[in-house]
Amino acid sequence: MADIFERLLKNYGPIGQHRERAHGYFAFPKLEGEIGSRMKFRGQDVIVWSLNNYLGLANHPEIRKADAEGASQFGLASPMGARMMSGNTNYHEQLEAELAAFEGKEDAILLNFGYQGMVSLIDVLCGRHDIIVYDAESHACIIDGLRLHPGHRYVFKHNDIEDLEKQLQRATALIDKQKAGGILLITEGVFGMAGDQGKLKEIADLKNKYEFRLLVDDAHGFGTLGATGAGAGEEQGVQDAIDLYFSTFAKSMASIGAFIAGDRKIIDYIRYNVRSQIFAKSLPMPLVIGNLKRLELLKTQPALKAKLWENALKLQNGLKERGFDIGKTDSVVTPIYMKGGVEEATAMVMDLRENFKIFCSIVVYPVIPKGHIIYRLIPTAAHTDEDIQQTLEAFSVTKERLDAGAYKVEAIPDMAEVK
Amino acid sequence: MADIFERLLKNYGPIGQHRERAHGYFAFPKLEGEIGSRMKFRGQDVIVWSLNNYLGLANHPEIRKADAEGASQFGLASPMGARMMSGNTNYHEQLEAELAAFEGKEDAILLNFGYQGMVSLIDVLCGRHDIIVYDAESHACIIDGLRLHPGHRYVFKHNDIEDLEKQLQRATALIDKQKAGGILLITEGVFGMAGDQGKLKEIADLKNKYEFRLLVDDAHGFGTLGATGAGAGEEQGVQDAIDLYFSTFAKSMASIGAFIAGDRKIIDYIRYNVRSQIFAKSLPMPLVIGNLKRLELLKTQPALKAKLWENALKLQNGLKERGFDIGKTDSVVTPIYMKGGVEEATAMVMDLRENFKIFCSIVVYPVIPKGHIIYRLIPTAAHTDEDIQQTLEAFSVTKERLDAGAYKVEAIPDMAEVK
Repeated sequence: MADIFERLLKNYGPIGQHRERAHGYFAFPKLEGEIGSRMKFRGQDVIVWSLNNYLGLANHPEIRKADAEGASQFGLASPMGARMMSGNTNYHEQLEAELAAFEGKEDAILLNFGYQGMVSLIDVLCGRHDIIVYDAESHACIIDGLRLHPGHRYVFKHNDIEDLEKQLQRATALIDKQKAGGILLITEGVFGMAGDQGKLKEIADLKNKYEFRLLVDDAHGFGTLGATGAGAGEEQGVQDAIDLYFSTFAKSMASIGAFIAGDRKIIDYIRYNVRSQIFAKSLPMPLVIGNLKRLELLKTQPALKAKLWENALKLQNGLKERGFDIGKTDSVVTPIYMKGGVEEATAMVMDLRENFKIFCSIVVYPVIPKGHIIYRLIPTAAHTDEDIQQTLEAFSVTKERLDAGAYKVEAIPDMAEVK
Repeated sequence: MADIFERLLKNYGPIGQHRERAHGYFAFPKLEGEIGSRMKFRGQDVIVWSLNNYLGLANHPEIRKADAEGASQFGLASPMGARMMSGNTNYHEQLEAELAAFEGKEDAILLNFGYQGMVSLIDVLCGRHDIIVYDAESHACIIDGLRLHPGHRYVFKHNDIEDLEKQLQRATALIDKQKAGGILLITEGVFGMAGDQGKLKEIADLKNKYEFRLLVDDAHGFGTLGATGAGAGEEQGVQDAIDLYFSTFAKSMASIGAFIAGDRKIIDYIRYNVRSQIFAKSLPMPLVIGNLKRLELLKTQPALKAKLWENALKLQNGLKERGFDIGKTDSVVTPIYMKGGVEEATAMVMDLRENFKIFCSIVVYPVIPKGHIIYRLIPTAAHTDEDIQQTLEAFSVTKERLDAGAYKVEAIPDMAEVK
């Protein structure tokens, strides 16, 4: 007989294993002050590239006013209860109607949180005879939804249309054989790590050859892509081929909650059957009101998206000109690929933070293969030319140091000892 | 080849099948005005018994002030990002520390939403060799967590200690046989439908005979039970036997979010590995600040809990005196059990709402067996004696009408036609 806790505590996991040295610095850092391109980290001003505040709405004066007024008028408690039982309001319905219209869909359903919304969406759509075909780099919430699925799931290589066709053929053959079930294809509008868009155009074309429903998680595309900001479907001209369009409010909208847009009938079905919404509290009123205002600015102030892209292209082109490998991004998400060990990466991050005042996120082994380092920079409309120039300079200098072996240290320093 | 949507739309589900007639009245009703015992429903004043605003904190002036100030100071966007990446703050840590101290545990972790927090908690704790033993009436979020579990799960009859022992014996035998794995026992502090407390005392005693870890979802007990309001564990004198204490903020705290309290090491393990927190945004700052103030009032104003119980007992004793069956509740949750068809129940609810101005939740077939009706009343500290008397009177009159067959109608009326 083994004790569950005892077993777990033998291995704290990929990041947890470093927790004693990393806590508060590499993991669970605190960024203080107003959300923007410059914030405080451990008392020092830093240029921040880690926040998905794409359009700079988090501290837009009209947003701050709407947030303050909504909370003042309704408090944070209202409405109480699940949407279906006692948590429905005119504001919730208005936001749903506006989101549906914005996405060119008949209807939309608000979700109290994106993660559980996606998990339950996949759950409510698929029965045991259905087959889910999904991209290998799908977000954790999609993976957790798949794990609830009692039927088959076929993964296709990330954005690999040839492999996707193979999986669709496999799925179609099995469904024909079992004489029951359908196919749900799940992909993303923009993959948040590498920044490459899902190949929605190619996937839409496959609808001529295969029968499936398409669900797209467009967390990073909503507000940042397409002529009006409606996302990756609009950008690629295939919004109509997306049967269910999903986005969180946690990125461009600088809020929480999420929504699903689609045909009225299927949205109604979801509304009456989706577990995480039926059995949990409705999105609080000030967040609904705040999201209405965010959507209004997103629609009426195209200058915000233009500024975001201006900054993103300055950053991306600047990095490319300086010889950095930013991979295949075709969104504003800006990864930088480097080679080096975990200890080197750690020393480089510290150099960037302490000496160049650059705060950005980093991914290393065991999340990605040994010897690789990925920085991930999120430009926003709130960044300035000076932020960008200072950052490009900092990366140039630190990359030289990395290549020269300057960060080869024997062990990860104990952050508790760093002044 | 079947289309997924087409198949789903053949059956809109237990409640969805009635959506055309029920929407806006029985399902997705709108309660308007300040949260309290009297609100507006379709323009009319009603006495509301459907909100888990147990302590009346939703509109407590100090809470409303804290909510307004928090949103004004920080906006609703801050902090951006997942806790581990960029969403950590001193306020989040302070709330964790205060919750841990209040629950008599070493540490606590905040959750961005209770539903996905519980799902991921079960997921992060259990591997394929572990066995989950759980109460048959566990909440939907526990069930969804179980569904992610790759190993065995043994259900025990609701609050049936004899059956629980059988399942523990089964689980122990299998674990001994496979020479790996442990047991996680999951139950609730208060079962939200019937209002009966989980038998935590008896379960704690079983720790002398069997080896298992105990996880308790105390959504309805937190703030309402125990000398200090610490919940069902405190109430039954077995708080120490609870290895992981979970509660949402959606009930007594009149907010959103949740927490898990336990030994420092296991909480730290959870903090670094729980998927719905690592891969989704942190609880917004004004909600954290609002929850700090709620916890302060919960701790420092015992009169709120006393008033809640005074009201609950007046309601429950009043119902019992009038001959109503309120089952086995030993919490403030107050069910009323009746017999009647779905159509009769519908007509009775309408009579209660339209003519007696009583708004409460009802459960009928197919959620419970045919011929049964369960009303569910949630008393709060905000209810008055007049609310209670008026409600008791209304139930007496409508129950007589029910028993006399006055609600026998041929079909559920179309609520769109009700003035």
